[in-house]
Amino acid sequence: MLFAVQMTVELPPDLDPQVREELVTTEKEYSQKLQRAGKWPHLWRVVGEYSNLSVFDVSDNAELHDLLWNLPLFKYMHITVTPLAPHPSALAADRQA
Amino acid sequence: MLFAVQMTVELPPDLDPQVREELVTTEKEYSQKLQRAGKWPHLWRVVGEYSNLSVFDVSDNAELHDLLWNLPLFKYMHITVTPLAPHPSALAADRQA
Amino acid sequence: MLFAVQMTVELPPDLDPQVREELVTTEKEYSQKLQRAGKWPHLWRVVGEYSNLSVFDVSDNAELHDLLWNLPLFKYMHITVTPLAPHPSALAADRQA
Amino acid sequence: MLFAVQMTVELPPDLDPQVREELVTTEKEYSQKLQRAGKWPHLWRVVGEYSNLSVFDVSDNAELHDLLWNLPLFKYMHITVTPLAPHPSALAADRQA
Amino acid sequence: MLFAVQMTVELPPDLDPQVREELVTTEKEYSQKLQRAGKWPHLWRVVGEYSNLSVFDVSDNAELHDLLWNLPLFKYMHITVTPLAPHPSALAADRQA
Amino acid sequence: MLFAVQMTVELPPDLDPQVREELVTTEKEYSQKLQRAGKWPHLWRVVGEYSNLSVFDVSDNAELHDLLWNLPLFKYMHITVTPLAPHPSALAADRQA
Amino acid sequence: MLFAVQMTVELPPDLDPQVREELVTTEKEYSQKLQRAGKWPHLWRVVGEYSNLSVFDVSDNAELHDLLWNLPLFKYMHITVTPLAPHPSALAADRQA
Amino acid sequence: MLFAVQMTVELPPDLDPQVREELVTTEKEYSQKLQRAGKWPHLWRVVGEYSNLSVFDVSDNAELHDLLWNLPLFKYMHITVTPLAPHPSALAADRQA
Amino acid sequence: MLFAVQMTVELPPDLDPQVREELVTTEKEYSQKLQRAGKWPHLWRVVGEYSNLSVFDVSDNAELHDLLWNLPLFKYMHITVTPLAPHPSALAADRQA
Amino acid sequence: MLFAVQMTVELPPDLDPQVREELVTTEKEYSQKLQRAGKWPHLWRVVGEYSNLSVFDVSDNAELHDLLWNLPLFKYMHITVTPLAPHPSALAADRQA
Repeated sequence: MLFAVQMTVELPPDLDPQVREELVTTEKEYSQKLQRAGKWPHLWRVVGEYSNLSVFDVSDNAELHDLLWNLPLFKYMHITVTPLAPHPSALAADRQA
Repeated sequence: MLFAVQMTVELPPDLDPQVREELVTTEKEYSQKLQRAGKWPHLWRVVGEYSNLSVFDVSDNAELHDLLWNLPLFKYMHITVTPLAPHPSALAADRQA
Repeated sequence: MLFAVQMTVELPPDLDPQVREELVTTEKEYSQKLQRAGKWPHLWRVVGEYSNLSVFDVSDNAELHDLLWNLPLFKYMHITVTPLAPHPSALAADRQA
Repeated sequence: MLFAVQMTVELPPDLDPQVREELVTTEKEYSQKLQRAGKWPHLWRVVGEYSNLSVFDVSDNAELHDLLWNLPLFKYMHITVTPLAPHPSALAADRQA
Repeated sequence: MLFAVQMTVELPPDLDPQVREELVTTEKEYSQKLQRAGKWPHLWRVVGEYSNLSVFDVSDNAELHDLLWNLPLFKYMHITVTPLAPHPSALAADRQA
Repeated sequence: MLFAVQMTVELPPDLDPQVREELVTTEKEYSQKLQRAGKWPHLWRVVGEYSNLSVFDVSDNAELHDLLWNLPLFKYMHITVTPLAPHPSALAADRQA
Repeated sequence: MLFAVQMTVELPPDLDPQVREELVTTEKEYSQKLQRAGKWPHLWRVVGEYSNLSVFDVSDNAELHDLLWNLPLFKYMHITVTPLAPHPSALAADRQA
Repeated sequence: MLFAVQMTVELPPDLDPQVREELVTTEKEYSQKLQRAGKWPHLWRVVGEYSNLSVFDVSDNAELHDLLWNLPLFKYMHITVTPLAPHPSALAADRQA
Repeated sequence: MLFAVQMTVELPPDLDPQVREELVTTEKEYSQKLQRAGKWPHLWRVVGEYSNLSVFDVSDNAELHDLLWNLPLFKYMHITVTPLAPHPSALAADRQA
Repeated sequence: MLFAVQMTVELPPDLDPQVREELVTTEKEYSQKLQRAGKWPHLWRVVGEYSNLSVFDVSDNAELHDLLWNLPLFKYMHITVTPLAPHPSALAADRQA
């Protein structure tokens, strides 16, 4: 079951650079673990913003919330979630998603 | 080069049913031709709305505009376009997108 | 799996009264069938508006979209969908929802 | 008498972790006391946000305001209140709410 | 129990003048009946707009919805409802409202 | 001459509790003095928010601005002002306001 | 007593040209009568829009509402009203406004 | 050439009172110098807000930007600029502005 | 003197195709005449929308308003105007604009 | 390939003046290097705001993101990106852009 998720990050400009780097590194590891597990099939940068557009593939709403709630940058993020369904004009291969 | 595109359709409620059906059929054919050509790699329905979230893969802005401008439903649509770039946390395979 | 859904209806003021009544009657039957099936566990009127706040209980996003897309009043509605998850402070009984 | 209430929490990212934990614990106890008393019949997490969608069952506006004003997290919350009424299409059992 | 209600009217500019006059006359009679019954204690014009700011005094949400739903101009109105409670700084006399 | 005024208060969560209490006490005295003078005939709490809906009765715009500018909580408030006029459907007694 | 008023006109594109011209002519005469009477001391065009920014000088809210309500184009306008007061930094001559 | 300019001031509530007073005094002197020079012909207070509505009379866009950029309170302001033109219904005297 | 202008066109979907074509042709001629005269130095299509982003070079606000007001598609457009000034970081050649 | 980019800067009012000056100087050098390279063909100041409207000429989305992400003031900016395409009414010379 797919959801589009947009995450916009707002780190305080005066955040300690080392804290910032650790946060970003931990976030990257967390994200890649989910990508490898097939939970986070798409991750794109929104041009010109500290923001990404992602697609998650989860078994239900509760799983999606847990994955997002535990993002290392969660408390610095504004997140919007859009549930997706197969589109009747999509080619067969895509409709299985 | 990827772009996220959201298309929201507003057909007049009193549109002639046959005209409506022809429009929708033509739109589907147009869309599937672009999907087969690899120009429109993702097409999802936004749950509960007459709207889709799509990803286009084009060579430049002008090509994207031409593809959208010629959508059979274009004059009934509200469209938003978001340029995408590779995300530094995306796994290597995905970063080629 | 639960979703909050707000449906706001905008019928043209000059809609033929008989058409209007048939639409509203069909909508009511459709809604009550889903209520009896346990798919639409809550349905409240928003005070002062031709709008409702509902909760749907479905197996996935695609089922929710199908139920909403087939609402007899769909083409006269503006719909927003909010995915819900169990709340950690909810009492045990409620968390099963 | 029912009201939909959405509460969105914004805790400062640099809040002392112990203060944060005490606040969240107190909030949970306060919420569960009201749930047991039948005043707060529904409490759901909004997926991907530090936010909940709730339904309150109170005798009047003043009681609702007192319950909300005394939430331990009140000063960190943005709250919206929507008065609800029975819906004419709701099945009899539900209309008593 | 008090509610602030703002009603904004949008009559089609080309509405038949006689229909318009009948609507406005019926609305006035309906409003004055409720004013005399003490249900609609305040009714003010918003300067420069076809809009009013009103205060309703009702026994519950359902009564308020019924009064608003049956406004002769309801289908031409956009309505917002704000639940009110006694203010702790209001003088004793006013707090009974 | 009447004006609807909505005042929303945003006190910093970490404001010194004693300073906070003094501010709120001074605000209450200031408000009640104006209520007794007939300048502030209505003061209601907006349910669920640190906000009030008020009606002021002043001789002109300048007097209203002076009363609002000197609110002890002014620098912590967001204020909106709506000029009111007698409504043609209001009963005679009310139209004198 | 001064008010800033912005009036934005939305005439239906298919309005009969003669009706349109009569409306605009009547509006101009109405406006100039008020300008000569000193009620409408400023009238500027907002560049690029069918909209004006005006300043009215009236004795009270009710007078302002009557002047606006009777604009020949009123039913085609969206109007916003902003009450003005003397500014403490304005030179003496201007503060009399 | 005229421009409407709205300036809204947001001084931090905990700004040192002496710094605040100096800023406000310098702003007043700056404003009055421009008023005397005929560059800032109108300056009104927006009722209930720390905001003004002004009209500037300048020779071009660049001059307007320089005047605004150098306002002593500039870094605490949110500013909107609206270009104005003569209105065809304005009386001859006013149209020269 | 430069202004950024965004024009968004909303032609009724059921506009007579011949009328539509004449409008678009006349608009193009009007635009190209102004481009040749140096009044409209930039004209770009906004990707995916029936909208353009333009830069105008005019002697004053009144000239800009006249050029826009006389656009053949004016009554079908929503227009926003942004005054521009030289940027202190722009290279010398560009600053003459 | 062209993109319109609006950058709005929000420097904290209490930023150390020397840090501020260094940031602004570095930003200017960075901008001028890109202007000389033909990547940033237009840079205008938005009148009355700490904001610019720019046009970038890049080979693809990824290049644009890299140029913006590395702006010395990036973490103090709010940026919006609008993809542009040739306009069918633009004169031949301009359409090559």
